Amino acid sequence: MLGNFFNPDSVAVIGASREAGKVGHEVLKNLLQSGFPGDIYPINPRASEILGLKAYPSVADVPDRIGLAVIVVPSQVTPAVVEDCGRKGIDSAIIISAGFKEAGSVGSKLEQEVSRLTKEFNMRVLGPNCLGIIDTESRLNASFAPGMPSKGEIAFFSQSGALGTAILDWAIERGIGLSKFVSLGNKMDISESDLLVSLADDPNTNVILGYIEGVKDGRAFMEAAIDATRRKPVIMVKSGSTAAGARAASSHTGTLAGSENAFQAAFKQCGVIRALTMEALFDYALVLAHQPLLKGNRLAIVTNAGGPGIIAADACERSQLTMASFQQETVKRLRDSLPPTAAIYNPVDVIGDAKADRYLSALQAIEDDGNTDAVLVLLTPQAMTEPVATAKNVIDTFSESDKPVVTSFMGGASVKGGIDTLGKGKIPNYPNPERAIAALEAASRYSNWKSAPVQQEEERFAVDNEKVAEILARAEQRNQETLAGPDAMEVLSEYGFTVPKSGFAETGGEAVAVADEIGYPVVVKIASPDILHKSDIGGVRLRLGSASEVERAFEEVISAARRFMPTAVITGVTVDQMIPPGKEVILGMARDPDFGPMLMFGLGGIYVEVLKDVAFRIAPLNHREAASMISEIRAYQLLSGVRGEEPADIPSIIDSLLRLSQLVTDFPGIIEMDINPLMVMASGQGAVAVDSRISVSL
Amino acid sequence: MLGNFFNPDSVAVIGASREAGKVGHEVLKNLLQSGFPGDIYPINPRASEILGLKAYPSVADVPDRIGLAVIVVPSQVTPAVVEDCGRKGIDSAIIISAGFKEAGSVGSKLEQEVSRLTKEFNMRVLGPNCLGIIDTESRLNASFAPGMPSKGEIAFFSQSGALGTAILDWAIERGIGLSKFVSLGNKMDISESDLLVSLADDPNTNVILGYIEGVKDGRAFMEAAIDATRRKPVIMVKSGSTAAGARAASSHTGTLAGSENAFQAAFKQCGVIRALTMEALFDYALVLAHQPLLKGNRLAIVTNAGGPGIIAADACERSQLTMASFQQETVKRLRDSLPPTAAIYNPVDVIGDAKADRYLSALQAIEDDGNTDAVLVLLTPQAMTEPVATAKNVIDTFSESDKPVVTSFMGGASVKGGIDTLGKGKIPNYPNPERAIAALEAASRYSNWKSAPVQQEEERFAVDNEKVAEILARAEQRNQETLAGPDAMEVLSEYGFTVPKSGFAETGGEAVAVADEIGYPVVVKIASPDILHKSDIGGVRLRLGSASEVERAFEEVISAARRFMPTAVITGVTVDQMIPPGKEVILGMARDPDFGPMLMFGLGGIYVEVLKDVAFRIAPLNHREAASMISEIRAYQLLSGVRGEEPADIPSIIDSLLRLSQLVTDFPGIIEMDINPLMVMASGQGAVAVDSRISVSL
Repeated sequence: MLGNFFNPDSVAVIGASREAGKVGHEVLKNLLQSGFPGDIYPINPRASEILGLKAYPSVADVPDRIGLAVIVVPSQVTPAVVEDCGRKGIDSAIIISAGFKEAGSVGSKLEQEVSRLTKEFNMRVLGPNCLGIIDTESRLNASFAPGMPSKGEIAFFSQSGALGTAILDWAIERGIGLSKFVSLGNKMDISESDLLVSLADDPNTNVILGYIEGVKDGRAFMEAAIDATRRKPVIMVKSGSTAAGARAASSHTGTLAGSENAFQAAFKQCGVIRALTMEALFDYALVLAHQPLLKGNRLAIVTNAGGPGIIAADACERSQLTMASFQQETVKRLRDSLPPTAAIYNPVDVIGDAKADRYLSALQAIEDDGNTDAVLVLLTPQAMTEPVATAKNVIDTFSESDKPVVTSFMGGASVKGGIDTLGKGKIPNYPNPERAIAALEAASRYSNWKSAPVQQEEERFAVDNEKVAEILARAEQRNQETLAGPDAMEVLSEYGFTVPKSGFAETGGEAVAVADEIGYPVVVKIASPDILHKSDIGGVRLRLGSASEVERAFEEVISAARRFMPTAVITGVTVDQMIPPGKEVILGMARDPDFGPMLMFGLGGIYVEVLKDVAFRIAPLNHREAASMISEIRAYQLLSGVRGEEPADIPSIIDSLLRLSQLVTDFPGIIEMDINPLMVMASGQGAVAVDSRISVSL
Repeated sequence: MLGNFFNPDSVAVIGASREAGKVGHEVLKNLLQSGFPGDIYPINPRASEILGLKAYPSVADVPDRIGLAVIVVPSQVTPAVVEDCGRKGIDSAIIISAGFKEAGSVGSKLEQEVSRLTKEFNMRVLGPNCLGIIDTESRLNASFAPGMPSKGEIAFFSQSGALGTAILDWAIERGIGLSKFVSLGNKMDISESDLLVSLADDPNTNVILGYIEGVKDGRAFMEAAIDATRRKPVIMVKSGSTAAGARAASSHTGTLAGSENAFQAAFKQCGVIRALTMEALFDYALVLAHQPLLKGNRLAIVTNAGGPGIIAADACERSQLTMASFQQETVKRLRDSLPPTAAIYNPVDVIGDAKADRYLSALQAIEDDGNTDAVLVLLTPQAMTEPVATAKNVIDTFSESDKPVVTSFMGGASVKGGIDTLGKGKIPNYPNPERAIAALEAASRYSNWKSAPVQQEEERFAVDNEKVAEILARAEQRNQETLAGPDAMEVLSEYGFTVPKSGFAETGGEAVAVADEIGYPVVVKIASPDILHKSDIGGVRLRLGSASEVERAFEEVISAARRFMPTAVITGVTVDQMIPPGKEVILGMARDPDFGPMLMFGLGGIYVEVLKDVAFRIAPLNHREAASMISEIRAYQLLSGVRGEEPADIPSIIDSLLRLSQLVTDFPGIIEMDINPLMVMASGQGAVAVDSRISVSL
């Protein structure tokens, strides 16, 4: 984030008020109470002093430079105030005031006016209509939120101010530390993307959390997110997902696309971990902020009771984690140190009368185990249980470990001391094993993302895009919104798709020549603008395997047509390649208002229409993303080979997806398209685009 | 539950101890501290007084009748103690002691001995290896759990003692009241089914919660659960679901069945609401215990902030609830009473500066709204927010309402007072909107179950089961584990399935006669024990539409067989009905170790093998259950008609499922079977069982 928001040397509060309860008072009070070390200037033309500070009528009257302006004046006055700030040379402003875009057309005009002014003065703006900003490191609380969280490594930004207040309130109560809190408000200027860029660079932040309802610029978001997630985890809640666009779609892809799928795809492609609830957002954050990344997905569970152990093992099986299978040495150590009735395989049950020392010996053995990548410690309060001492042993055992450990100390008052101890030792504790495992699973997904080699952008295929530009221009001239049949096939062919070979012939000899070129078997069809249902009048001959069959078919279809439709104009015959049978898949694209070209892949027919078994990604696509799209669908086994069938030619599908990605990136005028079906042959034998529809913007 | 567990007039603690921390001491202390009004007799041969009570060497020495014995002696001593109890005429005992079945073979033998004795004396036993029992109404705490929950309407039983302790501890801290708590332990005698029966009758319990890892008797469980859920909600967590049986399966159904699917089906058929986590268990319980049932599924949301409103609306859309569309009158009232910037459609946003009065007028309008069935009130702590007063208004508005209301007051210290007030007013509050909506959704599912008319057991189809018994007996004599082909078809035919008609002929004339009887078209196949691949030698003729074609086909297949396999014994030909094309579905059954015959339904082929898109139910089945099985699969649209296709004959599938249900209920010797495919014709045209495999126990 450009500007001076997190560490200004001085702050002016424009609209500071003497009246407790007013936002302009609360902001000033927060600035004072947070211990902000720089100068603070209350600005209020009707006061000379507020909360013990000298007040000024206007920023112009402040003798010194002002690093950051916090604006809490009514919206109608805001443009004038912003102009004052600009003239004073202030380059960063937080507009807390509401009454802008969110409040209807008058407010929208005001927001436009403010935007124009801030651009004129090169000013960066957070808000309007926001709660403000908190930076625990620089002790800056430029918000009207009640209270300030403790220092921590987690940064949190929120598009909803009220949700921000609730979360701050909750974080303070739980003692969860934050590095920064930012309320985005209307995102007139500064957006989630700016924050991702800024927080990725922030040395005090090691996990970035965000609540968003939409993005200002999908492309910018993806770029910022990819860069940020390479450096630290980004976890987001995206709501408003059911408010899908209402535009009527002209393709299968368009029908199935929608904003929710676009966000899902974008998050996946940028390594952003999506949390479905605010609760999960912080659950995931705790393990990622305070524990090492996972080197693999093998989980060890230690418990003092069978029931919670089973619950945890169930949750592990349902997750992407697996139950660790201990090394022999570990099993031996566990057997030697635990009572005979203990369970020494995973989950390790140290049984109900375990004191802290028994947990310790089990944990030490597991910490050393070479087959374990992460550890979950469960504790229920039983007669002999020592929650605090056990918590200390967890902390000690893993203080230097490269394995993440999380806990679920279950219960109320009996385990509270233990939970507090864990919190101080930065061991994430969860009220139940399921949430602990969900958090470890999220951490494992991030670990995988971080350790995967960075995939370069794909090289471009050599294609004739001028030819395609011509075809699209031709359609535009004809006012033709949809390209189908030969036009669509020509576009695909220019982009290197294999399309069915086809030719036209006026005589039997010509038909044979065409067939010879295409290769046998072929199909011969009558060519006549007057004959729609060619098969019905005997105008189609299939599976012709030789020149003589083609010649005879030519005579037959011509004479059939003459006989059944004597008045039809007959121009000759088309000779088409017979497409060998294969697996029918569908590839498509629809443009998302936020993220642009969104590609779809699925098996054809009912898999798309009834089961909606499809995968989405935002173009441009790289090889790995194309491959993951294909393997993501539920029916993937039908392509990879099942019931003794040969696998389909998946490299050809990947190639087709990459070519489609290039096509729709090259031509923004293509607004929607399906390739349906792409007929995929057996492994090594390629794929043929049998039919396609392309919608263009006119 | 038979016996005297919840309201005994007197209790003996056998193994009572003077030593604090010992289980025998803690149980006695809990009994005293809970204010149990009846007589308490510590039994300990080495003490004359414990905790101020006179102690007795043995129950035999107690001068009065003893209602309930709590046994906390070492497992080896337990049989002798149980015998003492029996002789004393005690009919109910809680065996808290561990060291039985859970501890290996010696313990198992001890448990068998105890079981034999208690049966001899007609004694009911809870445990062994359990935490004990708590009844807040009769002030009985016969457990060694630390602390006692307050009185409430929720009963909770747990197969895991440690989990029980943790939950009690948690419930005490949260002020969640319980009517009864029962720790099941090893379920030597009293099981979850007994508890369902007993708690269904308990006037102090209005919601039954259970944590189980398995059931003692699946049939008994289902009977008890169906009866209980007709009266009050039953919510359960079932863990251990991934520990599937390891028996090799001989059918598709057997491969896909497994314990997890059996529990899922049983819960569904009994109206038991399944919670996936302990957290969800109590989330659901709160709304069902304290709020009226839903009359429909239309939810209204009131919020003072946009973000949480969107989050809630999203969660609603993902659930089985729908967003209420208010009556005109309601919209008018909201418009009149709320500020112009408020959102008056659902979610209703009373906006950030709303005090309690504004919430009140919105809530009153919504309470009156005829299009609303349930209400969720969201609150975030903002400058003007009044959490406590708003909580009071929620309570007042809905105190007499027949609509359930739940809240999510979000935050920490700022909203704590409001949350406490809600708790006292029995309004369930959830830390986030998603959990609130999940709880309402569970309540809605229970409301639907409760209001559905009770489905009677199906009438029996008139079938010839003696004939089937003969066929199965024949297989047994032959030591034949699997019935396929004609044998299997005969079984199905006797149970009223339509099977392909078929006949045998030794001459061309006979073949024509058979074909005439079956109806054309038919298939003629060579009949010879020596010819396996009949098509390869020209031994099959398809689609024969007339007598003359059948006669010619007879000659052709006989002469082809003679020519190609001169040494083969040729017995004649089979004449089979040609099955018209339809939708292929699969019906099957596998026996579950807990619940017995489990039926499966799915579309055939890859839908079963790759997509695993199948539904399960426990037999016997009623009509509604059969119909719901069919509509439950993801690909249901393929049967109900999609893309202009005619719908399949779903009543025939229901009929087939009911016949299958009767067959496998009548014959326990059938351990697994598939009908694959059942070819289902278009609506009204029936279904034909084309092939089947039946596995029988020898």
